[in-house]
Amino acid sequence: MHHIEFEPVGRRGSCPEGISLLDCARLLKVDIVSICGGLGSCRRCRVQVVSGAVSAPTAVDRETFADAELKQGWRLACTAFPQGDVRVLVPPESLSTPQRMQVEGLDQQIAPDPAVRIFDVQLTPPSLEDPKADDSNLWSALERDHGVASGIIDLAVLQVLSSRLRALNWRADVVLRESEIIALDAPQTRWIGLAVDIGTTKIAVYLVDMKSGEIAASSALMNPQISYGEDVVSRIHIAGESAENAAKLQALLVDALNGTIASMCDGIGSDPSHIVDAVIVANTAIHHLFLQAPVQQLGLVPYVPAVRSALDIKARDLGLKTAPGGCVHLLPNVAGYVGADHVAMLLATRIAERDGITLAIDIGTNTEICLNRHGRMKSVSCASGPAFEGAHIEFGMRAAQGAIEHVRLSGDRLEIQTIGGVAPVGICGSGLLDGIAQMLNSGVIDASGRMQDHPLVRKRNGRREFVLAQRPGESDITISQKDVRELQAAKAAIRLGIQALIDDAGITENDIDRVIIAGAFGTFIDVQSAIEIGMLPALPLERFQQVGNAAGTGARMALISKEMRRAALEIAERDGYVELACIPDFNERFAAASNLGAELQPV
Amino acid sequence: MHHIEFEPVGRRGSCPEGISLLDCARLLKVDIVSICGGLGSCRRCRVQVVSGAVSAPTAVDRETFADAELKQGWRLACTAFPQGDVRVLVPPESLSTPQRMQVEGLDQQIAPDPAVRIFDVQLTPPSLEDPKADDSNLWSALERDHGVASGIIDLAVLQVLSSRLRALNWRADVVLRESEIIALDAPQTRWIGLAVDIGTTKIAVYLVDMKSGEIAASSALMNPQISYGEDVVSRIHIAGESAENAAKLQALLVDALNGTIASMCDGIGSDPSHIVDAVIVANTAIHHLFLQAPVQQLGLVPYVPAVRSALDIKARDLGLKTAPGGCVHLLPNVAGYVGADHVAMLLATRIAERDGITLAIDIGTNTEICLNRHGRMKSVSCASGPAFEGAHIEFGMRAAQGAIEHVRLSGDRLEIQTIGGVAPVGICGSGLLDGIAQMLNSGVIDASGRMQDHPLVRKRNGRREFVLAQRPGESDITISQKDVRELQAAKAAIRLGIQALIDDAGITENDIDRVIIAGAFGTFIDVQSAIEIGMLPALPLERFQQVGNAAGTGARMALISKEMRRAALEIAERDGYVELACIPDFNERFAAASNLGAELQPV
Repeated sequence: MHHIEFEPVGRRGSCPEGISLLDCARLLKVDIVSICGGLGSCRRCRVQVVSGAVSAPTAVDRETFADAELKQGWRLACTAFPQGDVRVLVPPESLSTPQRMQVEGLDQQIAPDPAVRIFDVQLTPPSLEDPKADDSNLWSALERDHGVASGIIDLAVLQVLSSRLRALNWRADVVLRESEIIALDAPQTRWIGLAVDIGTTKIAVYLVDMKSGEIAASSALMNPQISYGEDVVSRIHIAGESAENAAKLQALLVDALNGTIASMCDGIGSDPSHIVDAVIVANTAIHHLFLQAPVQQLGLVPYVPAVRSALDIKARDLGLKTAPGGCVHLLPNVAGYVGADHVAMLLATRIAERDGITLAIDIGTNTEICLNRHGRMKSVSCASGPAFEGAHIEFGMRAAQGAIEHVRLSGDRLEIQTIGGVAPVGICGSGLLDGIAQMLNSGVIDASGRMQDHPLVRKRNGRREFVLAQRPGESDITISQKDVRELQAAKAAIRLGIQALIDDAGITENDIDRVIIAGAFGTFIDVQSAIEIGMLPALPLERFQQVGNAAGTGARMALISKEMRRAALEIAERDGYVELACIPDFNERFAAASNLGAELQPV
Repeated sequence: MHHIEFEPVGRRGSCPEGISLLDCARLLKVDIVSICGGLGSCRRCRVQVVSGAVSAPTAVDRETFADAELKQGWRLACTAFPQGDVRVLVPPESLSTPQRMQVEGLDQQIAPDPAVRIFDVQLTPPSLEDPKADDSNLWSALERDHGVASGIIDLAVLQVLSSRLRALNWRADVVLRESEIIALDAPQTRWIGLAVDIGTTKIAVYLVDMKSGEIAASSALMNPQISYGEDVVSRIHIAGESAENAAKLQALLVDALNGTIASMCDGIGSDPSHIVDAVIVANTAIHHLFLQAPVQQLGLVPYVPAVRSALDIKARDLGLKTAPGGCVHLLPNVAGYVGADHVAMLLATRIAERDGITLAIDIGTNTEICLNRHGRMKSVSCASGPAFEGAHIEFGMRAAQGAIEHVRLSGDRLEIQTIGGVAPVGICGSGLLDGIAQMLNSGVIDASGRMQDHPLVRKRNGRREFVLAQRPGESDITISQKDVRELQAAKAAIRLGIQALIDDAGITENDIDRVIIAGAFGTFIDVQSAIEIGMLPALPLERFQQVGNAAGTGARMALISKEMRRAALEIAERDGYVELACIPDFNERFAAASNLGAELQPV
């Protein structure tokens, strides 16, 4: 075993010999960015070995770092193997956390009508004359006091029934889901519900009072699966390799959720055993990884989900700690890349009920878009890639402290704004979008994306780059020609997705009455910049609405209302699916759509 | 750690310091008899330390063994602590296994109508033009080919759905329980069912072909909980002490079942994953211990069960390894000491459907009796005690190799018959019953049970004992005056139970048309002997029927027939319960009933 220490996070511990620094970091729960999942190709897991010996630099290390940097101990964590005790510095841009989170969303008022019912019952103690069994006794009281017919009792409740009834002196709150008793505790217990939106990167968690329907607590955390790859494709690959990997990815997620939920409960003086219902939404891949359902087929043509239906699963079968017999409800998926989170977003934005023509977009590594034309809904999924999460971008990072999030360029005068107002350490998605829109406006790049001569453009190793921030003693933060190409690809994917729905509906862009932009990334982008580069259609700004984490809101609505679960089912049924892979001339269209500018170029 | 070796069974292994030889035996799965559960009171865990040192003899050891025996290393395993490596001889009478088992029972012909349905389906592979999800695809095929409406899919099936469907090239056998898919495998899989009768001492296990309803394999094993106490009261006490104990008792049972089931499956070329349904019956205490449901209230007035209802529980929630989403069905209990095994026995003997007056008895540590008077059924439970299992009897043992099972006495000429025809090592329940009936007939004991002068009666330590077998160099096998008292108590309990039902029904013994004697012990007793001592009413022998393991037969009937499950529910509903504790003058009646002889003595 080696003793490994990660700074500045201050995590340390023993790690077995023969595993890489990246695996050590995973073991010690240090969230090092790894987009490729440790394959040595993304070069994002840069760390500096400040003491102790690691294996010699690899060819990839030599390509990634200058000789001077290698001498200073810089390495890719995935290909560096400790040779003894080691101390490692993880720079902010290689750390996944802390990060800006989005838990706020639409505030939809829903009359509580939950799937669970709570009854206060008073039992008559058994006697030799009437030695009724405890279960019969409980059902008699429910029937007598509340007209509830006999049903079944969850095993975990049965296992404590007799002792709890006696400890509570034969009076209790009883919680039923359909005809099953799933929890039992003291009268006037504050029963709560759990709504979770599990994103590929971020997770939003809400505790809801089941009587009032009000949010009791909310919190956000990173999806810890990120240490096995930043995008779902990497995780599908890793989970598909072995049942052990799939189990590990599932457990990572559930353990993180259990930890967060326990501390949230603590914060409101409650306990996870009082969580009597839960709704979880996620994209199809994360949904499957959470269930430990097969994912390999999601990565292969024709990209079909294992499961599309809404599900009710005992929380214990997933390892999630809630009330003894509590269930988890998962909203339905639409397709392999249009998941329950999209359904939840559509539910929260009430798009299905809208007249006119509405477009709803959830921008992310995968961008899902829905067009509702007078009640006819169609969705599309486009692989916009992780550029907006900072991946594949030379100085890219997620929206964490020190990320450049906004850029203004007038002539050669540049203004940048960072998250937290601190010295810049990299550039996040909204900053990249802004920067490229500003470069386009100022003629730093042309419509084809090619970088022109400009006071802020310089050449390094024969390639042009735009200097966003100079950092004496450190590498300057730049947008490279390659970064522009990455954004062009992302932008083309999204715009083509929108166009596919418009073509399918037989309308024009200008017919769209309203564009709803959901999701954390969408909350922070400058819509004008997105229009200027041609990612979004050039409609008047007042037609756009940025709604925050609508998927989380949809999950909460389904948590407290059976009616909303039915509505979600109907949305998933009604929502048609347009497969981009089926569109003729897709590659030519993609090339044309890569051009920057508000107008979509013809093929 | 000490190295401990048990002979002649040949089990050896390392055991931690500071635990008793009895705990070492449990650890190494050597089934040493322990009626009191290791409290040092039953004195049944006699072993001989043949090499190595153990702790000094205790006061109880000195009471139990002669000085010469102590010098030869004889100790009670529960109070002997190894001081180093030790080799121990476990005499046959201290070993729980091997033992005569009873798995044969009534052969009731039932038309198979199981709770699970099996369908052969052929799916259409998904394509880009029709990228249907695997779950939707499966339900479409079920609907199209078999008219089965969409339902739910168990999580464990979902977790393999996509990979199995592809591996099976889109053709499969699908198993549904109600509207839930609980298993999926290759077409023409031989799907099997599991029926288990868990007795306090013995367990009978049956594998049944779900298509034909035929028994595919049967086997018997000891209930391994026996190492924590031979009667349910000891186990209720131990399980009630802590959740860990309850979990340990549950796991012992389930592990033993899993092991037996796996090897039975192996023997018929099947696999536990093909067990798609299971029915388990047991008395109420064992039923609760199996579920890890509370048992403390079973040991306290008014002795109520935690659960009376029939149950369907996912096998995985109990740790039982069957098909991925397989359930276990438990027949209903009637009362705290009238359990699902009694219901199964009543089901198998079809007593509910009989005209006239029928008495059904299942004799054991706890004896359950049911009287059906023209359709009106009442049951009673009596604490007959473990004397028939050899407990509390000086040379008592269970019905294993070397047990004296039959005794004939003419004048002073004695004949004994042992199980296996080997040299006698002790006396089992049927031998004790025979012996005492013969002693009564021959005037060796009088009606009050007092031992008279007789060539085979001798005095030891001032107390009379009847010599059954002389063993040169070893203690002779005897029936002591105290043994006679134990049998009198057991006999009184059973006879009073019968009388309580007769009184309740307002009939006389002679009105009984038929007496059904069920259970392993009842199979081997001599009914004439039981009548002579007054345990059973003095009816013509042709009215008695010994039916073997009827509870196991009832479990099998419920396994293959929903109709039989409904019938069991109806039996449990209809079956009234007479509580002996409510009978006036019970103690006086008990004293009178202790008298030996065919006639029940008046109070």
